Amino acid sequence: MTASLKLGIAGLGTVGSGVVRLIEENGTVLAERTGRPLVVSAVSARDRRKDRGLSLEGVRWYDDPLAMAAEEDLDIIVELVGGSDGIALDIVRTALEQGKSVVTANKAMMAHHGTELARLAESNQAALAYEAAVAGGIPAIKVLREGLAANQFVRIHGILNGTCNYILSTMRDTGREFGEVLAEAQKLGYAEADPSFDVDGIDAAHKLALLTALAFGTEVDFDSIQMEGIRSISSMDIAYAEELGYRIKLLGMARRKNGQIEQRVHPCMVPLDNPLSQVDGVFNAVLAEGDFSGPIMIEGAGAGEGPTASAVVADLIDIARGLKLPPFAVPADKLERAVPLESDAHFGAYFLRLLVVDRPGVIADIATALRDEEISVEALLQRGRAPGEAVPLVIVTHETGEAQVLRALNRIEELDSCLQEPRFIRIESS
Amino acid sequence: MTASLKLGIAGLGTVGSGVVRLIEENGTVLAERTGRPLVVSAVSARDRRKDRGLSLEGVRWYDDPLAMAAEEDLDIIVELVGGSDGIALDIVRTALEQGKSVVTANKAMMAHHGTELARLAESNQAALAYEAAVAGGIPAIKVLREGLAANQFVRIHGILNGTCNYILSTMRDTGREFGEVLAEAQKLGYAEADPSFDVDGIDAAHKLALLTALAFGTEVDFDSIQMEGIRSISSMDIAYAEELGYRIKLLGMARRKNGQIEQRVHPCMVPLDNPLSQVDGVFNAVLAEGDFSGPIMIEGAGAGEGPTASAVVADLIDIARGLKLPPFAVPADKLERAVPLESDAHFGAYFLRLLVVDRPGVIADIATALRDEEISVEALLQRGRAPGEAVPLVIVTHETGEAQVLRALNRIEELDSCLQEPRFIRIESS
Repeated sequence: MTASLKLGIAGLGTVGSGVVRLIEENGTVLAERTGRPLVVSAVSARDRRKDRGLSLEGVRWYDDPLAMAAEEDLDIIVELVGGSDGIALDIVRTALEQGKSVVTANKAMMAHHGTELARLAESNQAALAYEAAVAGGIPAIKVLREGLAANQFVRIHGILNGTCNYILSTMRDTGREFGEVLAEAQKLGYAEADPSFDVDGIDAAHKLALLTALAFGTEVDFDSIQMEGIRSISSMDIAYAEELGYRIKLLGMARRKNGQIEQRVHPCMVPLDNPLSQVDGVFNAVLAEGDFSGPIMIEGAGAGEGPTASAVVADLIDIARGLKLPPFAVPADKLERAVPLESDAHFGAYFLRLLVVDRPGVIADIATALRDEEISVEALLQRGRAPGEAVPLVIVTHETGEAQVLRALNRIEELDSCLQEPRFIRIESS
Repeated sequence: MTASLKLGIAGLGTVGSGVVRLIEENGTVLAERTGRPLVVSAVSARDRRKDRGLSLEGVRWYDDPLAMAAEEDLDIIVELVGGSDGIALDIVRTALEQGKSVVTANKAMMAHHGTELARLAESNQAALAYEAAVAGGIPAIKVLREGLAANQFVRIHGILNGTCNYILSTMRDTGREFGEVLAEAQKLGYAEADPSFDVDGIDAAHKLALLTALAFGTEVDFDSIQMEGIRSISSMDIAYAEELGYRIKLLGMARRKNGQIEQRVHPCMVPLDNPLSQVDGVFNAVLAEGDFSGPIMIEGAGAGEGPTASAVVADLIDIARGLKLPPFAVPADKLERAVPLESDAHFGAYFLRLLVVDRPGVIADIATALRDEEISVEALLQRGRAPGEAVPLVIVTHETGEAQVLRALNRIEELDSCLQEPRFIRIESS
């Protein structure tokens, strides 16, 4: 058995405490699997007196995490402070500059500074591992970077935010509206007091940016992600989806198209024969399609103390076992600068939901707007009759360009008979 | 870029040809990801003249695969000959004895000789990688050995044989019987002329034996697996399963129970809220439950040229990247000898299907047999009435011991009113 691996953990919130607990509980089997015991040698957190239910006897306490990051005696710094910039970024830079390996769960930081940090890690012969930053306990990074490394990726699809998936699943199960389910999710601790990161798609986009870089060998490019959250999804949309044979999911999607990189996060109608449609509740899933492997899906808990700690410690085990790969699979200097696909270049089928006055000629006006943009209609649903009143009208299109759909909807919105901004949801193929 | 990695491939069937094609097509991206080009330097197969659609220019041909395995100039031997013993085993032993790393897709060989070969590999500082031996393109080995390495495993469940899953899915979709669907699967090339390896559960058991060793740190123990195939599943069972909210799947299952290792391969009633119930057709899936990660499921193509080649080359990439772990995660000398759980020690709910004469007193006789074994009944279904004729009778039990169920069924079989050997299917919890 070689010398122990000395860890300094910055941040002792839910995940940090979970990591300490895991190393304590599973220490024996970890040492067998790595040949090197993992030892928590130092920690740094805001409040030393807080009771975390952890025995930190013999563990050095640092009030200043930067001092800990610079400590020569430590082998790996585990950054669990969070936040895209500020102290987290300083901790990681300090450690890497000294050639100390870093394990982090910080998706925001990696999404904004991933390429730079990868370069820094590589030039200092340090590992920079971030399995816990994407989809919690699911080893998605390892599966893309190693398990499917023989493939050129056709596309990556994922349910990357458990809060949104919980809200959408619950809306479907209960028929309740977004606001009500969100409030309940906040009470249950599944959503933050400020839910914007989750429900507006930002968190999913952070994770997607990392998966894209890894899969396509491009620099991390969070800013180019086309992003749309789930606030505008109504129980009516969910009911129509059900009727049409779809489930509404917030998906993160990436692919290479004509040399450009397409990255999108938005609600989708997912057909029931796509395995992502079956992933419910707080679960996350990543569906990677390799040119040789075909589609491979991995599903599990996307957050929480245990699953996230499992991912952090898996990274520690890799380092203990001597695995040191470039963070994005190829050396950072070889990552291509991604050319983003224009946001309206998407091509696919669309679900359109309008609120219109029920009177003669309305459907003809709408059909004309669609025809003029060469959009062909697969289904048109109008429920009941209410002459002179407002009624919902749902249209499912055949595959068409997004630019055409947007132009047609602009024109439809200007019709007197159209009472509300038209809504649309993209339909994913299976 | 360091020196190329010279491969010798033994066996140029579907998988071997796929590996050559993959390395040719994706060579550039592989070299970027590994920093070392993978070069097919030598091949050995039975018939040199056969047209495989491969360009093997500049590749040395060996009529004798053992001579190739002993060739000093090669870095890795890829064993794709197959068969648990014989030439495949000789090739692997020869290569490992010389400190040459081996990549194999041979589940039968690994299931029968895995521990010995792991020991041989480790004592010669060689890698022995077998990702392609379990669940084709799904990186199940990597996920258990590395992605979830922080966990103690609670249990491993898997759909490990695509032929059985295809047959069961098709029986359900079409209402046809086993024999008919098997014949069709043979015509389509989804089943072998001699289907026994697949439909009797042997192939799934080979894979399970490897997953068990990896998850629980035990020696590979194929012989202790309790094994039962799908030949006795009727369309009637499938229809009842549907009605009761289950899907019938051939599962491989392993867990540690009171220090003993339970390994079972048999058809199961899987509840619809268990994600394995949703895996249909030729797909495979592995559901691993870690103590910290919770359940993680990985699903994809379990066989075929592309997916299997993807797994073989992933192993080659690992070796090129310098990853050399003990084949079963901990050193072979530290693997425990598994103490197998007795086959009738299973505890769970059961689906029982009888064929009985429809006459007064029959149900009372059966109920008495169950009561005497303290088996409590959750549901009893008898379709229609046919006085004096044979009718199927279905019983769903609450959780009970398998030994009790077997005793009760023995007694029921002896009743005059029981016209056929009673059938039972174990019900898995979700």
